[in-house]
Amino acid sequence: MPIILGDNRYGKAETHVVRIAKDGERHEIKDLTVSVALSGDMADVHLSGANASVLPTDTQKNTVFAFAQKHGIETAEHFAVLLAQHFVDSQPTIQHARVEVAECTWDRIEPWAGRRGAGEAQQHGHSFVRSGRETRTVVVHYDGEQTHVVSGLRDLVVLNSTASEFHGYIKDEFTTLPETSDRVLATAVTAQWRHAETDNAEIRAVDFDGEYDVARASLLEAFADTYSLSLQQTLYAMGTRVLDECAGVCEVKLALPNKHHFVVDLSPFGMENPNETFYAADRPYGLIEGTVLRENAPLAGPAWS
Amino acid sequence: MPIILGDNRYGKAETHVVRIAKDGERHEIKDLTVSVALSGDMADVHLSGANASVLPTDTQKNTVFAFAQKHGIETAEHFAVLLAQHFVDSQPTIQHARVEVAECTWDRIEPWAGRRGAGEAQQHGHSFVRSGRETRTVVVHYDGEQTHVVSGLRDLVVLNSTASEFHGYIKDEFTTLPETSDRVLATAVTAQWRHAETDNAEIRAVDFDGEYDVARASLLEAFADTYSLSLQQTLYAMGTRVLDECAGVCEVKLALPNKHHFVVDLSPFGMENPNETFYAADRPYGLIEGTVLRENAPLAGPAWS
Amino acid sequence: MPIILGDNRYGKAETHVVRIAKDGERHEIKDLTVSVALSGDMADVHLSGANASVLPTDTQKNTVFAFAQKHGIETAEHFAVLLAQHFVDSQPTIQHARVEVAECTWDRIEPWAGRRGAGEAQQHGHSFVRSGRETRTVVVHYDGEQTHVVSGLRDLVVLNSTASEFHGYIKDEFTTLPETSDRVLATAVTAQWRHAETDNAEIRAVDFDGEYDVARASLLEAFADTYSLSLQQTLYAMGTRVLDECAGVCEVKLALPNKHHFVVDLSPFGMENPNETFYAADRPYGLIEGTVLRENAPLAGPAWS
Amino acid sequence: MPIILGDNRYGKAETHVVRIAKDGERHEIKDLTVSVALSGDMADVHLSGANASVLPTDTQKNTVFAFAQKHGIETAEHFAVLLAQHFVDSQPTIQHARVEVAECTWDRIEPWAGRRGAGEAQQHGHSFVRSGRETRTVVVHYDGEQTHVVSGLRDLVVLNSTASEFHGYIKDEFTTLPETSDRVLATAVTAQWRHAETDNAEIRAVDFDGEYDVARASLLEAFADTYSLSLQQTLYAMGTRVLDECAGVCEVKLALPNKHHFVVDLSPFGMENPNETFYAADRPYGLIEGTVLRENAPLAGPAWS
Repeated sequence: MPIILGDNRYGKAETHVVRIAKDGERHEIKDLTVSVALSGDMADVHLSGANASVLPTDTQKNTVFAFAQKHGIETAEHFAVLLAQHFVDSQPTIQHARVEVAECTWDRIEPWAGRRGAGEAQQHGHSFVRSGRETRTVVVHYDGEQTHVVSGLRDLVVLNSTASEFHGYIKDEFTTLPETSDRVLATAVTAQWRHAETDNAEIRAVDFDGEYDVARASLLEAFADTYSLSLQQTLYAMGTRVLDECAGVCEVKLALPNKHHFVVDLSPFGMENPNETFYAADRPYGLIEGTVLRENAPLAGPAWS
Repeated sequence: MPIILGDNRYGKAETHVVRIAKDGERHEIKDLTVSVALSGDMADVHLSGANASVLPTDTQKNTVFAFAQKHGIETAEHFAVLLAQHFVDSQPTIQHARVEVAECTWDRIEPWAGRRGAGEAQQHGHSFVRSGRETRTVVVHYDGEQTHVVSGLRDLVVLNSTASEFHGYIKDEFTTLPETSDRVLATAVTAQWRHAETDNAEIRAVDFDGEYDVARASLLEAFADTYSLSLQQTLYAMGTRVLDECAGVCEVKLALPNKHHFVVDLSPFGMENPNETFYAADRPYGLIEGTVLRENAPLAGPAWS
Repeated sequence: MPIILGDNRYGKAETHVVRIAKDGERHEIKDLTVSVALSGDMADVHLSGANASVLPTDTQKNTVFAFAQKHGIETAEHFAVLLAQHFVDSQPTIQHARVEVAECTWDRIEPWAGRRGAGEAQQHGHSFVRSGRETRTVVVHYDGEQTHVVSGLRDLVVLNSTASEFHGYIKDEFTTLPETSDRVLATAVTAQWRHAETDNAEIRAVDFDGEYDVARASLLEAFADTYSLSLQQTLYAMGTRVLDECAGVCEVKLALPNKHHFVVDLSPFGMENPNETFYAADRPYGLIEGTVLRENAPLAGPAWS
Repeated sequence: MPIILGDNRYGKAETHVVRIAKDGERHEIKDLTVSVALSGDMADVHLSGANASVLPTDTQKNTVFAFAQKHGIETAEHFAVLLAQHFVDSQPTIQHARVEVAECTWDRIEPWAGRRGAGEAQQHGHSFVRSGRETRTVVVHYDGEQTHVVSGLRDLVVLNSTASEFHGYIKDEFTTLPETSDRVLATAVTAQWRHAETDNAEIRAVDFDGEYDVARASLLEAFADTYSLSLQQTLYAMGTRVLDECAGVCEVKLALPNKHHFVVDLSPFGMENPNETFYAADRPYGLIEGTVLRENAPLAGPAWS
């Protein structure tokens, strides 16, 4: 039975580029880790090591840096689109590009006069501190015609200290979990939202940074104000909220680990524990994954791959 | 435009079960970290938090431990199949189960008489040391009829100190990489191999541990004896070798990071470096992903998801 | 030559306790990971396995949870002091306790009316999001008499995009680094500050949370407003600022990895790069460690061990 | 009250050098990650940023690579000693050097004829696979006169499936742990052994690789054949064994996390669990640290810092 080559792709992963835009004394920082994966006419390189259709991963890395300087980085999404289009449009042997970005965000260090009241605070135009724990994410696919953009975030860690119940579930011979009407609900949100638009000119006009802020706030808000009977219910509310608030988004995927906080049994020590002292466990953990989308969402194509 | 629920699944991730089989003084150890993901009639739990169709993740965890005791762990694959079938076959609301296993392997501690020649070495029947760096992996899918089994490994770190070249590739305006006829080739192998068989009775008879040994040796051997003109060529040779040696396997997926070892330029110090001293870089790295399969391989269905 | 037992200690590491203080609708959260290390009359347990002087690590873990419920968690420092004193004062065989705490801090999720102006924002009394990237740290030592308290933080990641130079250093036969009058200076701050006070009653009165805010702001501010000729100079300025602002602190230790941001050479592509596009490297990295203290600082004793 | 500079050091951390020694077709590989920390006349660089006494960390990195090529790497210990002496002896402003090495070890890929009996196996002279999970470690200190060498390893993961008891310990109001006469004992060994010799000429003659093999085997063997009433007892036996077998070693430090394996309570499911099925927990964990030394061991000086 003959053996054949199936799906394949290759590229340079995790090129860490930092771009400082300088407008006089006031600097702006973009901090992206970019992973490129290309596919196309790659049979020969696999079968015989003939590299005539291979754009080396080293060149891909160089291109990331050169594009950062040449085009600047408007948003992580726009930068990923530029790169994806460049690789496919400039190389006949490359038919598809996937560009993934992880973005670290930075806040400006706030002036602080000090305990002693040191007088007027000085503005820090070039000093930054890494913000929050979450990482912003982007995945772009381009096949020479359509551009698929998926924005997102990971490691946004949230916790509700009440307003969460869990009961009414299946009981079988291996059930020991007691039902509860008051538990801690905590998770590290991974969320990705797909843009309906796949036309390049239209995508160029999207305000991805503004949309990110809205999507992030929507996730937080929906998590906070959903009285939860299950983490799935919270997940659905979070996805729905993003769709409600972000008109350009057609589909949201969420992965929510249930970071269990167990009420510690203090009765051996003659103590009560009215849901105040918890053991925060690492493993195992529940993992809830789900998709929320508009009924008329266009086909996803390669967007989620 | 209405909003709807799309693909979803849930389960308990990373239940770490260790099973000691005791045959008199001689013990055997199986060390598995098991992740379960179930899907089925889950609309209500998302839309309203009604949990009537939910088998809690806590119960899934209990089941992992109970099954380890009740059935033992013949191989990670057999154990994953047992669990997947149990969840689907015992619960009308569960239509699909995915069970993933990461297995740590242990070697018996070898007797050692010591430098002083302490006389006869004692056999260690119950003492173990963690072997190699790689982790063995299994993913099983079961939908009530078919069972898909994918075995594999990750973090098998290998290096060829010569017999690797790279040249003949595309040069564009961003190319700076010089061609080379002698380089270090190093990677951390992630490999997964899919079994053609999807019938439960047939799967029960497979010697997965024996096959694992053959697949692992095939990967190492093909890596070692392929004179490489590109990492893609090595990847294809590794996948082909597994198919050659493992009759029950129909498809192999490999992900090979190119762990760059750069020849250090010592000319500023008046020294030559004839490919002897290298800087081992972390990031960025090349990432080569590819699939090798039999032309008549049955459809993969959900096997790779 | 006889063999003897030297320094030793034992305890339960990384007990993760989360305490929710509930004042009606408004909750407060303390999230501590506590590591206990005890020492004392432990010769027998090492020499013969006789455990009569051993307070099991399981009991130490129970004590952490029970104390969280019994005493609440005023600050991480106060909680660590309570635990250290309990172990030494309640067990004749325990002469010394070291209690280390890593604290994750949480912010209240801010109300957000949404893009559509959803009306009055609702206060979130029980919903939290993990703040910043840094972790707050505490190490307490207690020997039955003196209590040493060291507060601190780690992983406070900061960057100056200019106002940093490096020149005038030693050149030897292995020097290739060019001097620079404008570079990015970035680091992940690990800082620890020792409190002069070792008397329990006095320590009980310290406002550790308020002091933490001042110390953190001092570190940020000194990093931001120091025009830097070396990372050592910045380190010294940061340590001095903490001492200036925190009267109760007598000594500061800092470990500052130099997170190199290299200006990418774009000249092969005919492009200039006026310090705008950087490659952020992982390894190797410079590591600058230093101590700044008051000349009359009391002896540190075991504080830093 | 004046503020002063205390202890300080600086250097390049984690330079990853791989050296391939080529003797015809047969290659040997040394894979070291080297961290240098220097101290000396560093007041000015802290106080004013004057760098006249600073050997840049970039130059330290260059020196690591240049020395690998110039001197080869006989053992990690010898290489660290060479570097430490170079920095102190060549720079008047450097009075003390600490060089730390983490070494990854590699095995030759064994020839494998394959299931089909492919005839004579080919020797792999240049193909390697990363061995075991442990990392070999070295810390060297040099002050211009004495050289202190500490060898070691970390992450050597071992498990006894029986022959371990734990009872007779203190019971207090927070005790819930039941005594046991049969438990799993598992740990990830971190061990460091100090060499008595501090004279350079003598150190040059030590067979560190041979000694490492003996020390590692001693640790494994002592772990395996000690019937354990406490992990402390096992620790002491392990340290003693190394001293017994390695004449040049005068002191051993061990850190042994107690990787708890809890017997799963299966009684709710009507099942017995005679110490066969375990839940392997991550956190919290016991941590046992101890030192075993010869009574006449010379003073450690800076060796352990």
